[in-house]
Amino acid sequence: MIDRLLTKIKTVENPTVVGLDPTYSMIPNFIKQEMLERFGKTPKAVAEMFIKFNKMIIDEVYDLIPSVKPQIAMYEQYGLEGLRAYMETCEYAKSKGLIVIGDIKRGDIASTAAAYAGHIAGVEVEDEHFDLWQEDAVTLNPYMGFDGIEPFIDACNKNDKGLFILVKTSNPSSSEIQDLLVDGTPIYDRTADLVSKWGELTMGDRGYSRIGAVVGATHKEQGTELRARMPHTFFLVPGYGAQGGTSEDLKGFFDKDGLGIIVNSSRGIIAAYQKDKTFDEKDFAKASRQAVIAMRNDLQGVMG
Amino acid sequence: MIDRLLTKIKTVENPTVVGLDPTYSMIPNFIKQEMLERFGKTPKAVAEMFIKFNKMIIDEVYDLIPSVKPQIAMYEQYGLEGLRAYMETCEYAKSKGLIVIGDIKRGDIASTAAAYAGHIAGVEVEDEHFDLWQEDAVTLNPYMGFDGIEPFIDACNKNDKGLFILVKTSNPSSSEIQDLLVDGTPIYDRTADLVSKWGELTMGDRGYSRIGAVVGATHKEQGTELRARMPHTFFLVPGYGAQGGTSEDLKGFFDKDGLGIIVNSSRGIIAAYQKDKTFDEKDFAKASRQAVIAMRNDLQGVMG
Repeated sequence: MIDRLLTKIKTVENPTVVGLDPTYSMIPNFIKQEMLERFGKTPKAVAEMFIKFNKMIIDEVYDLIPSVKPQIAMYEQYGLEGLRAYMETCEYAKSKGLIVIGDIKRGDIASTAAAYAGHIAGVEVEDEHFDLWQEDAVTLNPYMGFDGIEPFIDACNKNDKGLFILVKTSNPSSSEIQDLLVDGTPIYDRTADLVSKWGELTMGDRGYSRIGAVVGATHKEQGTELRARMPHTFFLVPGYGAQGGTSEDLKGFFDKDGLGIIVNSSRGIIAAYQKDKTFDEKDFAKASRQAVIAMRNDLQGVMG
Repeated sequence: MIDRLLTKIKTVENPTVVGLDPTYSMIPNFIKQEMLERFGKTPKAVAEMFIKFNKMIIDEVYDLIPSVKPQIAMYEQYGLEGLRAYMETCEYAKSKGLIVIGDIKRGDIASTAAAYAGHIAGVEVEDEHFDLWQEDAVTLNPYMGFDGIEPFIDACNKNDKGLFILVKTSNPSSSEIQDLLVDGTPIYDRTADLVSKWGELTMGDRGYSRIGAVVGATHKEQGTELRARMPHTFFLVPGYGAQGGTSEDLKGFFDKDGLGIIVNSSRGIIAAYQKDKTFDEKDFAKASRQAVIAMRNDLQGVMG
């Protein structure tokens, strides 16, 4: 997965990941009306809205980007219908050659982590195998330590899947735990060291591990320091755009080859038509395409 | 929710929570065969196995316990069918008067946390409200700080729901991050202080907050220390039984009234028939009832 990701980024010359995190208020009226008419005021209607919305965006941007990152919470709140929309989104993105990062941030111990690992390992019923979630990689939470990560590593190696583990998140209150100092060293550095160590258990062929780290774009200095601290760890970087991170902030996150990170933008891309009123609502996906191109150009300016 | 929990515990004189965490290998053959015949080797068959298994256990134990805690990972690995089984389990437990703690351990920032909060807040589609997940409380991960908790607090207050936030988990590698020392104080104590502070935002009427803490039974000293440190925080305690925690270890976790904690057991109860061969497989739920009674009696010995 990590080597495929490297190849994709080089091919499209773009480390932009599109965060497919739809909300009800982002859905253009023509899609909303169609689905409300067909399915009533139901979770199923919202699921169908999300599927149509996502597919139209994917169709417009898949040739420009290496990967998409659907945030499962946005779907999960609509129950089973919502999660069906999540799965269909993953499947469709995959069919277009995109690497799918499921932003699930799960984290639990031993046997429970083994169950969550079904996201990337699939599941067996007697001698039948099912790959139900269709993700190439997932995000995980490190608070429980290695017990919560280990069951996923087998799937990384066997099925060439990937993980991105939270190290320093983009939100303001990330400081409450992540920045606490242990002998002068912040927790996120300790987490970084653990993630690096775990990463050695599933290295790709080109210098990067299948275990990456989540490092927020909103932390310029920390990102630069973490790049040096974890040279074999790919970064998934949220917080660009809507959350305030700029390309200038990201200079130090790249490795010497202008690789080493993928940068996520959600609202800034998928809801671009709501900001840039030159686009008709029906052309919302074209606004997303334009936003991806603008982000790519912005990032290319600092990739070196 | 927390006051209802207190009342339930007093009524049944038992702080035992049954962890409804079925695995394929726990399912008695007569259920397995029935569902494989009806639905083939499919996730749907497993979902139906889990539903039948859980319902039969609930029927045998609901009069003895205050609460059940289904672990969503066990269901999530079987995709949408699995999650349907999770929801049906929650709904059925609720119909029997049990408090349902969804062990989901979600944790994310701001708008994403708001979406996850749908687990206890429900979701709107236009002017229709849906309570899809049917949980009375959920577990959460604190790594991202208050941003990830705040959106849930509103639902706690408005809908009288509850949270249990990871403080010190029961697994061996919990030490990797949770035990790191900050100025001589372990991270789990810092987390405990945050959880106490957050808890003030949603107090019940009887001295305990709707925000509780997860504290593993496998950490005797830490649990005793945390009880003193967070007098208004109810503990959800995993790790009893199969993971090695004993009632003796839990003495210090109780408050002076013999309350303040609920103790979870999963395998030890729901798979009791696999250990105690005096029960016929068809009577697996009766073995669970006996295990609940044994656990209740064991805990009553130390509740003081």
